Amino acid sequence: MAKSPEQEHPKKAFGWAARDTSGVLSPFKFSRRATGEEDVTFKVLYCGVCHSDLHMTTNDWGMSIYPLVPGHEMVGEVIEVGSKVKKVKVGDSVGVGCVVGACHSCENCTNDLEIYCPDMILTYSTVYHDGTITYGGYSDTMVANERYIIRFPENVPLDASAPLLCAGITVYSPLKYFGFAEVGKHIGVVGLGGLGHLAVKFAKAFGAKVTVISTSISKKEEALEHLGADSFLLSRDQEQVQAAKSTMDGILDTVSASHPILPLIELLKTNGKLVLLGAPEKPLELPVFPLLMGRKTVAGSATGGMKEIQEMVDFAAKHNITADTELIPMEYVNTAMERLAKGDVRYRFVIDIGNTLAATKP
Amino acid sequence: MAKSPEQEHPKKAFGWAARDTSGVLSPFKFSRRATGEEDVTFKVLYCGVCHSDLHMTTNDWGMSIYPLVPGHEMVGEVIEVGSKVKKVKVGDSVGVGCVVGACHSCENCTNDLEIYCPDMILTYSTVYHDGTITYGGYSDTMVANERYIIRFPENVPLDASAPLLCAGITVYSPLKYFGFAEVGKHIGVVGLGGLGHLAVKFAKAFGAKVTVISTSISKKEEALEHLGADSFLLSRDQEQVQAAKSTMDGILDTVSASHPILPLIELLKTNGKLVLLGAPEKPLELPVFPLLMGRKTVAGSATGGMKEIQEMVDFAAKHNITADTELIPMEYVNTAMERLAKGDVRYRFVIDIGNTLAATKP
Repeated sequence: MAKSPEQEHPKKAFGWAARDTSGVLSPFKFSRRATGEEDVTFKVLYCGVCHSDLHMTTNDWGMSIYPLVPGHEMVGEVIEVGSKVKKVKVGDSVGVGCVVGACHSCENCTNDLEIYCPDMILTYSTVYHDGTITYGGYSDTMVANERYIIRFPENVPLDASAPLLCAGITVYSPLKYFGFAEVGKHIGVVGLGGLGHLAVKFAKAFGAKVTVISTSISKKEEALEHLGADSFLLSRDQEQVQAAKSTMDGILDTVSASHPILPLIELLKTNGKLVLLGAPEKPLELPVFPLLMGRKTVAGSATGGMKEIQEMVDFAAKHNITADTELIPMEYVNTAMERLAKGDVRYRFVIDIGNTLAATKP
Repeated sequence: MAKSPEQEHPKKAFGWAARDTSGVLSPFKFSRRATGEEDVTFKVLYCGVCHSDLHMTTNDWGMSIYPLVPGHEMVGEVIEVGSKVKKVKVGDSVGVGCVVGACHSCENCTNDLEIYCPDMILTYSTVYHDGTITYGGYSDTMVANERYIIRFPENVPLDASAPLLCAGITVYSPLKYFGFAEVGKHIGVVGLGGLGHLAVKFAKAFGAKVTVISTSISKKEEALEHLGADSFLLSRDQEQVQAAKSTMDGILDTVSASHPILPLIELLKTNGKLVLLGAPEKPLELPVFPLLMGRKTVAGSATGGMKEIQEMVDFAAKHNITADTELIPMEYVNTAMERLAKGDVRYRFVIDIGNTLAATKP
């Protein structure tokens, strides 16, 4: 008989887990594996609350395994390393993102794209190599193979850097891959949430001209004054939209609700690329003629490989890019999820695991 | 009052035109402009019958101007050149494709992408710079600015080369632009018609591994034995489709009828690109999650710029690539259109203008 989550591994661990599709999180005792020779064990200090945590706690994607400890934007301090670990030492600041395992032999892994490996293992709610279920960063400790450990430079604010591990790489990777990370490119950013606000920051750091595209005029001041976007396009103002037609090299679309993409395609220049980062449940409508007449692209992109995540974290440190966060105590997490579902966050909740989790232990 | 098509220009011309949305073609007297200083005038010898000719004669796209002389795959022999023309001389073999004018100053024109210029002028059924309507290659003579003149190398069979000017460039351009024109790439070709059969030939010439994807098993022998494809995938055979998943770098989809693209997206590797060359009237269904999980692209492409068309014609000459054609007399064109509408052609009708048009003069 399989052992319980609390007994299957030698190290005691504590976190918060969802138990069913209600998604309600509550204290949860489980265990972590002993530090293997290629493993790094660290004390979790902060963990970002990603929108996918919300989808996973309520099993929106039909792949949740309960009890489910969410969290794939975790950062902390190394407390133990395996004998073969070269990347980090005890005391270093590290993090783990969305992935903790892959086959390491396929074409994707060889190309440092573990995220696209068919045997990729997610940081939580997935069966690991040893047959046990992975648990995420809403917990006191983490153990991961060093390939999946990201180093954080000294003096980086760890709380505001945690969201880089999912939100950050999700916007950084397509900016680079699709050729948007160049001085003078005109980039649109649709949706000003966790992903969108970081997209503006990274695109600006690459030297692009950035236009925030939003349905809500209330985002205008924020986009221009606070985030430093170059312009703001109110997507339901036909006059503004008409004037902006065929002006953009690329658009990062962070909206996961179903929405028309024809108006976005029309904003693109010849050879322009619309990159979808959110996943609406139903298929979108794809008008083909507007794609043909301008050799335009609609593409998708999902986070990035480990090598690129490290590159992104180093780039962010150099350019002082962090997420705008609301730091919350562990016991606030269910309220935070409710607010997140309504888009009521500016722009990312980060749980202060190090200072507030222990107090919730039963 | 505007002059009639027969009187508006100094040079008498004769062709076949559609007069209304019935699309029926019949003899038509019109006129061509005098050879301007940058113009090339040539005797039309052959003209391919493109599927868009069918759409245009019946006004399927709502942009037809009657009387309408179709034809944008025309080749012939130069009979007069303007004083500033450097590209060709009297007696040379030349052709004109889909475009005869553009602004020559926008970003697209500057990048040799006249086809994507907002002021691009189509070879027929479009208002030219001088205010008259353009007439296509189902006619005895043609006059065009030398920028739009393509040179054909000596000893190239002109009849079988005519379809390169639209069908050829429509497949060649995306093979190059999307990075498919490389030795060892695995390229799928959906639909084995005028475009598809040339896509197989060009992709093979670039050294790619080519799989023809079709709903009809009857195309298998043709694809493998005659066109030299490496493999054939019957798209309704689930076992074959399953085995081919995640194996292709790119797919050229030449089908213009509405069809599901999810099965095609699933055939792509990580970073794979599905390029749509046909334009279904209604939007296609675009599933987003399969795009995200593999950073996949759906794009469109429409023929190519003049510089690239010349490059393609030279490449085709070097590699002995021509279209498989059925050479028909002018008076057969209405029957040919009916057969084309049913897909009953192997693979391109080409009208023997030089030998058969004059006999139809009233």
